[in-house]
Amino acid sequence: MPVGTGYLIAIGGAEDKLAQRTILTRFVDLCGGGQAQIAVIPAASGFPAEMDRLYCDVFSKLGVKHIDCLHIQSRRQAEDTTVVSRLEQASGIFLTGGDQLKLMSLLGGTRLSASISERFSAGIHVAGTSAGASALSRQMIAFGRSGALPSQRMVQLASGLGLVQSLVIDQHFSQRNRMGRLITAIALNPGMIGAGIDEDTALIVTPEGAYEIIGSGKVTFVDGRHLTYTDIHAVKRHDLVTVTGLDIRAFGSHESTLQLTL
Amino acid sequence: MPVGTGYLIAIGGAEDKLAQRTILTRFVDLCGGGQAQIAVIPAASGFPAEMDRLYCDVFSKLGVKHIDCLHIQSRRQAEDTTVVSRLEQASGIFLTGGDQLKLMSLLGGTRLSASISERFSAGIHVAGTSAGASALSRQMIAFGRSGALPSQRMVQLASGLGLVQSLVIDQHFSQRNRMGRLITAIALNPGMIGAGIDEDTALIVTPEGAYEIIGSGKVTFVDGRHLTYTDIHAVKRHDLVTVTGLDIRAFGSHESTLQLTL
Repeated sequence: MPVGTGYLIAIGGAEDKLAQRTILTRFVDLCGGGQAQIAVIPAASGFPAEMDRLYCDVFSKLGVKHIDCLHIQSRRQAEDTTVVSRLEQASGIFLTGGDQLKLMSLLGGTRLSASISERFSAGIHVAGTSAGASALSRQMIAFGRSGALPSQRMVQLASGLGLVQSLVIDQHFSQRNRMGRLITAIALNPGMIGAGIDEDTALIVTPEGAYEIIGSGKVTFVDGRHLTYTDIHAVKRHDLVTVTGLDIRAFGSHESTLQLTL
Repeated sequence: MPVGTGYLIAIGGAEDKLAQRTILTRFVDLCGGGQAQIAVIPAASGFPAEMDRLYCDVFSKLGVKHIDCLHIQSRRQAEDTTVVSRLEQASGIFLTGGDQLKLMSLLGGTRLSASISERFSAGIHVAGTSAGASALSRQMIAFGRSGALPSQRMVQLASGLGLVQSLVIDQHFSQRNRMGRLITAIALNPGMIGAGIDEDTALIVTPEGAYEIIGSGKVTFVDGRHLTYTDIHAVKRHDLVTVTGLDIRAFGSHESTLQLTL
């Protein structure tokens, strides 16, 4: 399913940074452990310097010696070849939380965005947490309303980085009651699979297209591949949307030995 | 720019069907003139039988002997291999007007959608008018508000057929005052190019990725490839959105000998 050959690690936000650090440790291990060279992109955040310090600190504690923070505050910087070239040495790229639409306002369609895709295709691993997770998909949830039931205008879509084509990724999923907006997103994109990732939980997509779940929460899949009907084209205002034939399943890490091949 | 090797003909709706029929004649000529085999898909329409009759009539008058109408009223039909196989003989596919979100609710992610892409890649020409034009792009304007100025929540996006990756297509463009929603769509998808097509006007994308315009109106390009800034991530409610670095140009058919290579 991914277009690239690195591991994709989509984290639902609020991953443990102090205790077991299961998710971040896995990312660091994939990237080469002590030999890892990690590029941190905090552009989604309104407080990028603080975000940079936070992740430099935790990656250092996990034994990473080479951490390069790309402070992108303008699209001009994201087009700057000297900035972009700094990805060449990275074995992993980490996108922090914040606002995914801010991230894509800065990166969308730029050389840096193209380079992330190219590096991913070349085998580099890419992790994103919260906003950074949302931005991994091609069709990105920009923002939306909370609630359990799908309804018209509940979700606003935009383009993400496009590292995974068939997934629509949502985060802070159980904690922020986002089932309705994820179902609405799939009604707008029939044939795709929604992945609602809880906090401190990660969905890992392997280069072979297998799925694994790690962390303390669950990942809820809203699978629209066998969708039989939706009336979303006929629904007015903010009324409820009908969708039939959805397959909805939630998995935790203890179930992930299945190596879900969705 | 197109992923396929057929001609793509995006028509802004209300194309002349009685007089010169410039656009429909061009489509028929591309498809082989009297030898053309045209598959009509009226699934976007609320009145598909009437739509079918309308286009059977006009294509017949243009000399086409083989016209096959695929009446798709359910996703089950769009998954039916006997229905899908009827595209195999077609030299052209024509998507009627109606509601693009209805069209994609029926076709999105189905075998028929995949087959349209495959046939297009194999050199078959695909035309769409009005809703059918919108659905040609990957990132599709599902619906939105009229008005000249871009604002938050002005446009709702969904997935289209994806025959063209970098264009966001809008139709009835001048007639329905849709500049604001097209600019908003590009702010949500920086790096892409919006194409706002007037009625009785077509944007033709050649297999080489060149652009040509035919018909009586204009095509307005909202080119976001050099977008320098947008605040769309920070705008609340329905407030105005700022976008800088857009290149906006409109071309009519008399200017299309340029063979625009956008």
